[in-house]
Order: sequence, then C-alpha cells, then structure tokens
Amino acid sequence: MEKQNPNNKIDFYIISDSIGETASKLAKAAIAQFPTVTTVLHKFMFISNKESADEILKEATKRNGILLLTLVNNELAEYIENYCVQHKLTYFNIMKPVLNEITKRTSKGPSKIVGAQHDLSEEYFERVSAMEFCMRYDDGKDPNGLIEADIVLLGISRTSKTPLSMYLGNMGYKVANLPLIPENTIPKVLFEIDPKKIVGLTTSDTVVNLHRENRMKEYGLPSGTKYASMERVNEELKFSSELYQKLGCLVVNTAERSIEESASIIVQSLGLTNKAW
Amino acid sequence: MEKQNPNNKIDFYIISDSIGETASKLAKAAIAQFPTVTTVLHKFMFISNKESADEILKEATKRNGILLLTLVNNELAEYIENYCVQHKLTYFNIMKPVLNEITKRTSKGPSKIVGAQHDLSEEYFERVSAMEFCMRYDDGKDPNGLIEADIVLLGISRTSKTPLSMYLGNMGYKVANLPLIPENTIPKVLFEIDPKKIVGLTTSDTVVNLHRENRMKEYGLPSGTKYASMERVNEELKFSSELYQKLGCLVVNTAERSIEESASIIVQSLGLTNKAW
Repeated sequence: MEKQNPNNKIDFYIISDSIGETASKLAKAAIAQFPTVTTVLHKFMFISNKESADEILKEATKRNGILLLTLVNNELAEYIENYCVQHKLTYFNIMKPVLNEITKRTSKGPSKIVGAQHDLSEEYFERVSAMEFCMRYDDGKDPNGLIEADIVLLGISRTSKTPLSMYLGNMGYKVANLPLIPENTIPKVLFEIDPKKIVGLTTSDTVVNLHRENRMKEYGLPSGTKYASMERVNEELKFSSELYQKLGCLVVNTAERSIEESASIIVQSLGLTNKAW
Repeated sequence: MEKQNPNNKIDFYIISDSIGETASKLAKAAIAQFPTVTTVLHKFMFISNKESADEILKEATKRNGILLLTLVNNELAEYIENYCVQHKLTYFNIMKPVLNEITKRTSKGPSKIVGAQHDLSEEYFERVSAMEFCMRYDDGKDPNGLIEADIVLLGISRTSKTPLSMYLGNMGYKVANLPLIPENTIPKVLFEIDPKKIVGLTTSDTVVNLHRENRMKEYGLPSGTKYASMERVNEELKFSSELYQKLGCLVVNTAERSIEESASIIVQSLGLTNKAW
C-alpha cells in the first residue's frame, strides 16, 4: 500500500467509543512538544462497530497515521489492533496498560461501560449546579454569592476573573468573583467571610496595559493616553494588593500563566479536594 | 519493604512537571471502569527536582501505588523510573511512547518545555474572550449576542443551557443561550441569523420534572402539584420542538447525556473545528 509523505506531516487518528477526551489530551500534550512539526488530529467519537472502524482504518493506512485508541469494547479494540499489525500501522491502546494493572490487582474485570466517567451521578448534578452558581455570581452581581461560594476571586479588570471562574466552575467549585475598582465601596461581607477561601488575583502592569490598549483599539479609541493609563493601572494594582494584605488572603499572579495553571494553583493552595481530578 | 493492603484499595500517584491534566484524565477514565474498586488519586504538580520526587516515591512505595508520569524532563523521568524498577513499583510514563514515535518519524526531539500545551498563544486569548462572551450572553441577557455567537443554544428551563455554554466557552466557542418560555416573545433576530449555528436543546419530561421537583424542595414548597407540573412541562417541550422545526435547526436531547457528550455532539454536528481537541 502506498503511504503519503510519512515525514512531512503526522496524522493522528483518535478512535473512541465515547468522546475521546483522554486521547485528545494526550495527543495535544505530545504534539505541543514538537512546535515545528505539522500535525493533524482526526477525532472519531462513538465508534462502536467494525464497519465504521473500517472506514477510518482505510484512511489512516493511506496517510500512515498514528492511531490512539480508547475503546472499552475489547472485541472492537482487538479487531483494530489486528488490522494495525497486518497493515504496519502504529497504534497506542491508551487505557489498556492501566486497565490491565487494575484487573491484575483486584481480579475484577473492567465494566466495559462506554463513557463511564461521564456518569450522571450526584457528583455530576453538583457540578452542574456549581456552573450555574458561577454564572450567577460573576462580576460581583450579588454580594450574597460571597457567602455561599467555595472560592471568592478578587481582582482589577483584566486579571482573568471570569475565565478562571468558568474553569473552576467546570471543575465543580462554586465561585463568586468581585471586580476591584478603587472608587467603589468594598461590600462589608468580604471582611466577614473566611479569608481562607478568598483569592486575590494580580498581574503585571504591562499585561493589564496591553489588554486595555487592545480594548481601546476595539472601541476605535486612540491609544495615546498610554502614560496616564499606566499610572492608573499601577494605582489599581497597589489598591488591590493593599486590600489583599488587609484580608490576609492568598495572592495569585495570573500574568504568564494559563487558566489551567492558575486554577490548579488555586485549588492546591486552598487545600480543596480537587473535584475534577 | 512492607506494603499495605495491596488488594483492598489502589493508590494512584500522578507526578507531573506541569499540572498533570493528561494523567488525571487517563486515571479517571480507567478508574470509572471499576466502580466497585476503591481508589485514591494523589496528584503532584510542578515536580521538577529529585528531592520533591523522593518524598512522593517513598509514600508511593509504602502504599504499593501505581505511578502515572507526565514529565518532559527526561533526567527526572529516568530517575523515577529507575527507582520504580528497584522498588518493584508499577509505573506508566504516559506520553513517552507517543513522543518516541513522533521523534522517530521526524528525527526531531521534543522541546522539553514544561506545560507546552498551555502556551499563551493568540488562540489562548481568543479562548479567554470566548469565555467572557458566554458569561455576557448567558440566559438571554442581550439578544445581540445571537448575532455574534458561534453557537446559539435554545431550550426550556433545565435543558442544560448554562453548563453547556460554559463548557463550550471553555473549548473556545462564543455561545449565546436563550431560555424558551411559551409566554415570552421570541426575539426577531433569532429568525434572521444562520439556522446552522442554532441548537435546540430538548430533554425528557421526566428529567425536567425531576429537576423542578428538586427545586421545589429546595425552596421548601410542596411537591403535590406534580400532575399540573407534568402538563406544564409537556406544553413547554411541545412549544420548543415546534419552534425548532420552524427554525430548521439541529436538535440535541440532553437527557441521560453528560455535558461533555452533548458538547461533543454539538461541535461535531455543526461541523465546527473542535478548538479544544
């Protein structure tokens, strides 16, 4: 069988009988280690029979792809593995080694329930209600949120309050965030709640400035007021760091950090059970 | 070395020099296949030197744990692997096989940049702004969101509009959602936008009813109005399905589906490039 440009571009074929999240994460992490290599991710979800597998396998063979399998259906997995061996296709059955190890230790077999980690358990409903909580209490909409929240995020504009709330909400935490503006009164309740659940977000003045200049451009306003704006940014940052000291709360710098990283640091530092682990 | 109850409980040790997302996903998916096995996940992030690794390894040995490694630092990975071999600890270096395969094909080595997939790229800023968009246009707050959105979600109460918006926002899509209430006027703009980006959410009457009864309980109200409420739910579901037909939009049933599954189906069905793959 003729194989196309094996060295110029790498085609990954993710085949899953669920949504292929695990394999996607793995592929993305691996690919990120090769910034100069061109890669294409082909993802095939809900694959449950040989007929649909065959089509993918034919295409993968033509492109000499790398197959990443997350299948709980053993028969289908074996069928694909056999095809790969016969056609000299590279494949990785990602969960198999760990599943085998658990089986060995417990002498129990896997349940083979497709997408088992997406079970509609009580935990799941809790997570949905956490997400709704985060929407309701974004941007200081209601100071009552501060009392009920698992995590309270504080920060001046452009310190990633909203994306962090969403990400943590997705993990199952009830997050309320409060924008800090020197001219506004701080709600009294902030000094009454447990400071151990408060996180003061900070960042560098240049990052805030960059964000704000971009905003000015979006709004079609001149960027000439740069100096004044740098002064203003520093005034706001100073105001927020003084408040954080007064509260005695955790401070996290979001400059140069991704949402995932900042969220992980927050969950670990606050000593919370990481619900989405 | 004495090993504690190897068969009653399995301790997983995730060791990562980044935030350990890939290993967590893998561990959770594997564990979900063994609902009757008791497992504990220990996650150690930002591990970059032998000293911090040693502490974890000592604990893992005591509990006869299973180690899941995602380390781009080869020297540290080898150090841990050697320790595991010597102490007969089970370990899986999760990314290694895929990294090796890419290296073999391209004769390039991995960049060894820790947390490379969390790069603060342009794509990343786009994602943050998508998340902010979703917060802004949740719950029909502003019909202008329908025009700018990548995805418009419609649905009666309790069809998972908000969690789906958050999850898709996290993936990088700008989502606006609009609650459907038979008594309310549908914004005219809904009939002017591309129906190919509209998703009508539906669910089963029993799911909605269950959710609403739980709500009643939360509010301390009696649940006796069950029949009337079932009638009401069916009236709302009928109203929404008639609207979906008129719009000619995609219809997704969220009953018995997790947020991840519904989101994947939406992205695939709308033919969108899956940004978070």
